[in-house]
Amino acid sequence: MIVSDLPAHFATIDARRDEFVQRLCAYLAHPSISAHGEGIAEVAALLVAQLQGMGFDARSIATAGWPMVYGRRDDAPGKPTILFYGHYDVQPPDPLDAWLSPPFAPTIRDGRIFARGAGDNKGQHFAQLLALEVLLAAQERLPCNVIVVLEGEEEVGSPHIAHFVREQRALLDADLVVTADGPMHASGRAILEFGVRGVASFELRARGAQRDLHSGNFGGVAPNPLWTLVHLLATMKDANGTITIDGFHDHIVPPSDLERAALAALPLDLPQVMADLGLAQLDVPIERGYYERLMLYPTLTINGLHGGYGGTGSKTVLPSAAVAKCDIRLVANQRVDDILAKVAAHVQRHAPGVEFIAYGGMDPSKTPMDSPFAAILERAITAGQGEAPLLVPAMGGSLPEYVWTKILGVPAFVVPYANFDEANHAPNENIVIDCFIRGIKTGVAIMTYLGAEARPSGCP
Amino acid sequence: MIVSDLPAHFATIDARRDEFVQRLCAYLAHPSISAHGEGIAEVAALLVAQLQGMGFDARSIATAGWPMVYGRRDDAPGKPTILFYGHYDVQPPDPLDAWLSPPFAPTIRDGRIFARGAGDNKGQHFAQLLALEVLLAAQERLPCNVIVVLEGEEEVGSPHIAHFVREQRALLDADLVVTADGPMHASGRAILEFGVRGVASFELRARGAQRDLHSGNFGGVAPNPLWTLVHLLATMKDANGTITIDGFHDHIVPPSDLERAALAALPLDLPQVMADLGLAQLDVPIERGYYERLMLYPTLTINGLHGGYGGTGSKTVLPSAAVAKCDIRLVANQRVDDILAKVAAHVQRHAPGVEFIAYGGMDPSKTPMDSPFAAILERAITAGQGEAPLLVPAMGGSLPEYVWTKILGVPAFVVPYANFDEANHAPNENIVIDCFIRGIKTGVAIMTYLGAEARPSGCP
Repeated sequence: MIVSDLPAHFATIDARRDEFVQRLCAYLAHPSISAHGEGIAEVAALLVAQLQGMGFDARSIATAGWPMVYGRRDDAPGKPTILFYGHYDVQPPDPLDAWLSPPFAPTIRDGRIFARGAGDNKGQHFAQLLALEVLLAAQERLPCNVIVVLEGEEEVGSPHIAHFVREQRALLDADLVVTADGPMHASGRAILEFGVRGVASFELRARGAQRDLHSGNFGGVAPNPLWTLVHLLATMKDANGTITIDGFHDHIVPPSDLERAALAALPLDLPQVMADLGLAQLDVPIERGYYERLMLYPTLTINGLHGGYGGTGSKTVLPSAAVAKCDIRLVANQRVDDILAKVAAHVQRHAPGVEFIAYGGMDPSKTPMDSPFAAILERAITAGQGEAPLLVPAMGGSLPEYVWTKILGVPAFVVPYANFDEANHAPNENIVIDCFIRGIKTGVAIMTYLGAEARPSGCP
Repeated sequence: MIVSDLPAHFATIDARRDEFVQRLCAYLAHPSISAHGEGIAEVAALLVAQLQGMGFDARSIATAGWPMVYGRRDDAPGKPTILFYGHYDVQPPDPLDAWLSPPFAPTIRDGRIFARGAGDNKGQHFAQLLALEVLLAAQERLPCNVIVVLEGEEEVGSPHIAHFVREQRALLDADLVVTADGPMHASGRAILEFGVRGVASFELRARGAQRDLHSGNFGGVAPNPLWTLVHLLATMKDANGTITIDGFHDHIVPPSDLERAALAALPLDLPQVMADLGLAQLDVPIERGYYERLMLYPTLTINGLHGGYGGTGSKTVLPSAAVAKCDIRLVANQRVDDILAKVAAHVQRHAPGVEFIAYGGMDPSKTPMDSPFAAILERAITAGQGEAPLLVPAMGGSLPEYVWTKILGVPAFVVPYANFDEANHAPNENIVIDCFIRGIKTGVAIMTYLGAEARPSGCP
């Protein structure tokens, strides 16, 4: 297997374009909604069969939640082993009436396939599977060793993947992990991502009197849980956007020179971003730059705050209860358990009557930009996508990449195949067919370029 | 007419107790809901007829909203003229399923009449009207001059009474105003109230991006309207409960020595208050005392705050909009228009992107505790209630008393006849029949004691 075979593979992929689109549509027609389980077992079984059909040692592995789909082929002794991670579950499709075509009746319009899961994540991991099929149709053996892990609970926060990786470490002896998920860059450019922010969610519940009170009869003497939350929250982040929870910044690793250089090289069309958001200005002055704040800065977001009267006009009520829901985006090397413990201690210190409920989360992940696999992937993506990828130190959102970098201890990369406007988690989710096809090519190129290398020295 | 006639009048009232209860029940069976107008015209007509039946020059006077019921008898030249204010409208009765008997099917249980309006305010102003009837049944002329004003919009904030009083000043040439509304003291004692706190309501609307965003994809770069409101509100009141709006305290008149002495004399069962509210502690340390905070301190209450996700569990959303509704309780001599302008300026200075919506309100009212009418009312209440009233500098809630003290420029007093647990604005509203009967006696006593006096010197 040599890199010079790539043009022939790409020609095959182009020739089979319609067949691949049709097969993706057939796959997307199966719901697999992790929030309530519809179609999960059926789709997991489909995927196991597809992997077995390609000669993979494949099976469904039970977890405390929905099963993991697992498969491997050890075709290339002495060559690297790549683990392709993806997730076969999708978000619930509602609101249904906002879809132009039904979410599980895949429909092609304007060169895109519209369906729930088209971008997130079926269209992307299906491209990986088709890349395997294209290679195995052309030759007996894959150019590198391949492990496939497709999760069924990514859309509900991957609650069992860490346990799975710890328990099944022997099955997961990869040299690197590549995840095709999330969108490409807003500029349309391909990207190679080295990390993700983590996320930790929690809730604050404040209580006042045991019933709503008249603000005149008790205002000034009975506590107001909305004021309790306002004053508590104001101690957690100041008006300049700096998080002021004690010890919050303890473990944060500042960006490396490579990361700073990569950030500086990313294209940014700020007027376009602001027009898209309908904003006249962004958040508090962004002295460290848009991308640094989005990728390498932690955040504390109030996701929701509710208490008291919410109808029209005014009502002179002093409410009995209020709830705030928050998430924190974590950056390397913050840890979910440590940060949630610090928030709990902060709440206990500033508002001991407020109930703190931790919802857990995902640790952040960071692979060094000088990883020996980075250059290989960069060349492979350039071949598959037809242009060099932008190098992105981290994505703003979260994926369970930490299970690879922190638990397995191997480098992990995100190589998205979906268009930026994939509308994931939203009505009219879609994937641009050209992106899907370039994804298959990129999968082929990644395995081909990896197969052209010996295992890098220092690999476990 | 002399004070020594009172025992005979009281005996008459006791003898007619069942008849009076039956007639109040008949009155309470008529809905008169100002929020949507049901029964308003019918009840106003009933009241005009009742006043005319007693020889009053009475009529319904149109306003831009529901009509005022007005009547007068000038029976006693040289004697004071008292204006009895009340309101014939009631709160909507919902939630209906929480009533043990239907809200407009008055029902007697445990010595109480249960019906919407029993305490607030039909049972109380009906007692005033029966007091007139008792006096006129015993003698041809009332002992003092009487003006009756019954409003139809008190439960929707009395939006037109100020205009009415300004326009109809010639009809309202009273020496004092007495309002029987609100409850007696928690201890069960009768009270004589000299003022009310005012109220001013407003809303704050914050906006972020034009749609909800993913907290990972935009957290740290797109503004969060919930944080905007939290930080803005935190600049308006500090964690110790001190209102920090610029100029807010400019016009506040400190309590007089008489007021401080009255506050100190009020009974307070703090453990009972806290048990009733289900609270282990009250609001921020009450260094100035429960009653001073409740009656003579301004408040800033967040009535409601809503934005973003409010369902179960967590959702990593960065919301696009948030709304806070607030009311301020004003104390003498703050003014609604001045305070709302100061809040607007504060919002403009601290969060210029936040929309400020003023809902208006009612000015506070304060009658000096050394008013020459205070001692007369105190003696009359003692006679009617069978015990001396507690002297209360102000009630925590709001009534449109300012139209009498500020626009008419006469002393105004609140003399509640209803039991403390009348459940006004709530299901199972009620009046204790003994309280209703003592209210009739108190009305008779007030007019009788006023008739025993010449008009105090200095009256207009």
